[in-house]
Amino acid sequence: MTTNQIVLASRPKGIPTLSNFRNENVKMPEIKNGEILVKVIYFSVDPYMRGRMNDIQSYIEPFQIDQPIKGAAVAKVIESKSNKFKPGEVIVGMLPWSQHYICSEKEIKKIDTSIAPSSYYLGVLGMTGLTAYFGFMNICKPKSGETVVISGAAGAVGVVVGQIAKIQGCRVIGITGSDEKTNVLKDDFGFDETINYKTTKDISKAIAKICPDGVDIYFDNVGGDISDAVIANMNFQGRIALCGQISLYNTIEKPIGPRLQPILLTRSVLMQGFIISNYQSDFPEGIKQLSTWVKEGKLKFTETIELGFDQLPKALLGLFKGENTGKMIVESQMH
Amino acid sequence: MTTNQIVLASRPKGIPTLSNFRNENVKMPEIKNGEILVKVIYFSVDPYMRGRMNDIQSYIEPFQIDQPIKGAAVAKVIESKSNKFKPGEVIVGMLPWSQHYICSEKEIKKIDTSIAPSSYYLGVLGMTGLTAYFGFMNICKPKSGETVVISGAAGAVGVVVGQIAKIQGCRVIGITGSDEKTNVLKDDFGFDETINYKTTKDISKAIAKICPDGVDIYFDNVGGDISDAVIANMNFQGRIALCGQISLYNTIEKPIGPRLQPILLTRSVLMQGFIISNYQSDFPEGIKQLSTWVKEGKLKFTETIELGFDQLPKALLGLFKGENTGKMIVESQMH
Repeated sequence: MTTNQIVLASRPKGIPTLSNFRNENVKMPEIKNGEILVKVIYFSVDPYMRGRMNDIQSYIEPFQIDQPIKGAAVAKVIESKSNKFKPGEVIVGMLPWSQHYICSEKEIKKIDTSIAPSSYYLGVLGMTGLTAYFGFMNICKPKSGETVVISGAAGAVGVVVGQIAKIQGCRVIGITGSDEKTNVLKDDFGFDETINYKTTKDISKAIAKICPDGVDIYFDNVGGDISDAVIANMNFQGRIALCGQISLYNTIEKPIGPRLQPILLTRSVLMQGFIISNYQSDFPEGIKQLSTWVKEGKLKFTETIELGFDQLPKALLGLFKGENTGKMIVESQMH
Repeated sequence: MTTNQIVLASRPKGIPTLSNFRNENVKMPEIKNGEILVKVIYFSVDPYMRGRMNDIQSYIEPFQIDQPIKGAAVAKVIESKSNKFKPGEVIVGMLPWSQHYICSEKEIKKIDTSIAPSSYYLGVLGMTGLTAYFGFMNICKPKSGETVVISGAAGAVGVVVGQIAKIQGCRVIGITGSDEKTNVLKDDFGFDETINYKTTKDISKAIAKICPDGVDIYFDNVGGDISDAVIANMNFQGRIALCGQISLYNTIEKPIGPRLQPILLTRSVLMQGFIISNYQSDFPEGIKQLSTWVKEGKLKFTETIELGFDQLPKALLGLFKGENTGKMIVESQMH
C-alpha cells in the first residue's frame, strides 16, 4: 500500500512559496501490534507552523528537510491492532501531512462527534479554543465592562476570544483586513465594533475614537504596526496577551519599531507571551467549558475549508494573506 | 521670615540643564492652627522627576512652571500648631524644594530614627525600598536558584533588589557603568557577577557567558540597548519588571529598537510595568519586612550625599550621568 505525503523541500527565506514543499508517494510499512492505521479527514493549518519551517530552536522543534510537515489532524481509524481503537472511530492527534498514517496508541485521542462536527476538534474544541480560553482568561483576566481589542480578530483564535469576551461582559473591538470580515465579526460573532486595518489610515486614532475610555485588554495575534497603534491606547493596569505575531513571521531583517517599555512602565501594563502547552494540566477544564458554551449556542465557530490533500501548502501560505475567516482547514478527500 | 526655594523655570527639551531651574528667596506665610513649620534636612533626588518636568499627563501630574519642584524629603519640626507633632521630631513627606515649609498634618509622617539614619526613610525604608521589594517580589516572583539580572544595579533601587534577590537564594548579576561601581556591588552588596556596560563591547554575549543557563528574571531600571541585550537571553517563562527606563528619559525623538514581542511570545515571558503606588495598601507589610532585614544586617544601603540646598538641580542632572552610587540625596544645610 502507498500513500501521499508532503515534505519540507527547502527552508523559506521570508515568505514561503509552494517550492518549499514537495509531494511524494511513499510505500506504507506493515501495521504492527498495538498500532492503528488511520486515514486523515481534516488537517489543521496554523500560523505557528511558519516558525517550524526555520532551522531555529524554539519552544517546538523545527521541521526537518525531506520529512513531512506535521500538525493537528482529525482522522478515521481504518485498521487497528490496538484494543483501544476500532475501525470507524474518529480520532485527533499531531499527525504528519500524509493521507494515511500508522499511529501508536499514545499519539491519538478519540473524539465525540455528537457534540460538534469532527473538524471542530481542530478549532474551537481543540488547540485553537484552548489558546483563546487560557490566553484570555488567565492572562487578560477580563472584568465585566472592560474594553477588549483583538487583532487578527477574524482568525481562528480571534473569533473565539471575541465571543468569550462578550460572555464575560466586555465591550469587544476586532481588527481585521476586509469589510467582508468586519461584517462577519459583527453579524455572526457579536463584536461591538470593528476596524478594517487595510482601509483605515490612522489605526491609533481610530481606536481612540472607538474606545473613548481607552483599552483595558489587548489580545494580540499579529504584532507590528497594528499592535503599536493599540498599545498607544492602553489604559492604566491594562493587560496584553501575546498569542501570535503573524505580521512578523515572514520578515527577513530583524523587525524594529517604537520602544514600548515607556508606555508599559508609566501605565503599569502587563504584557505576557504564552504558548498553549503552558496550560496542559488545565486542558480538561478548558475543553469542558468550551464544549458547554458550544452546546449552549453561546460560542459559534467558523472555518475556511480547502478541498483536497494537495491544497495543504497553498492553504498554509493563504494564512499570511488573510485568506481565511476562522479556522483554516484542509479536507483531505475531494468530494 | 523668608526661605529659599527652587522652581521649574522652563521645561527641558532632551537633557535638562541648570537653566531649567531658578533659585528664589520667598516670604513665608504665618503658621496657622493645625499646621507645622519644618526645616528640611534631606531631599530625595529621583529619576522619575525627569518625567514630571515634561508637560505630559502621566500617572503623576507635571511640575508647574514657576512652582517649586517637589519630592520626598526628611525634615525636622521647628514649630507646631498641631498636637500631633512636636518641635524636634523628624518627619518624612512629599515636600517642595524649599528650605522651610509649612505643612498640614496629612502631608507628613513621623519616622523612627532608632532603626536607621533618618535619610534611609528616603531610601531603603522609603519609596526606594518599597519599589525594590514589591517590584521584585510581586512581579518577578523569585525562586531559589534562579538567575537575576539587574540594570542600573548600583542605583538606589538596584542595590536593594540585588540584596533581596540574594536573600531569596538567587544568583545575581548587576549591570552598571563603572569599575568602581562593579566593585561596590560585589564587595559591599554581595552580587555574584557584574558587567560594566561602558567597557563591554557585546553586552548580550557577556550575559550569555556569565549566565550559561539563561536569565530567569530581569529587573529593568534603564531600558534601551542594555535591556535589548538582557532580554535576548531570557529563559522560557522568564519575568521582567519594568521599574525605570532612565536611558530614554532625555530622548527627544520617539525611541525605536528591536521588536521584543517575538521573544516574549516564543519564550512565554512576562513583562510588567509598575509604579509603587499600585501597592499602597501593602506598604506597612513592606516597610516591616525591609526594617527587619535592615536591623538583621541582611540589607545594607548606600547613599551619595551632595551638600547644600543649592546643589539640588545639579544632583538631579547627575542621576542621568550615573554620578550616584545608591540613593542620591541632597543635604540641605552645609556643615
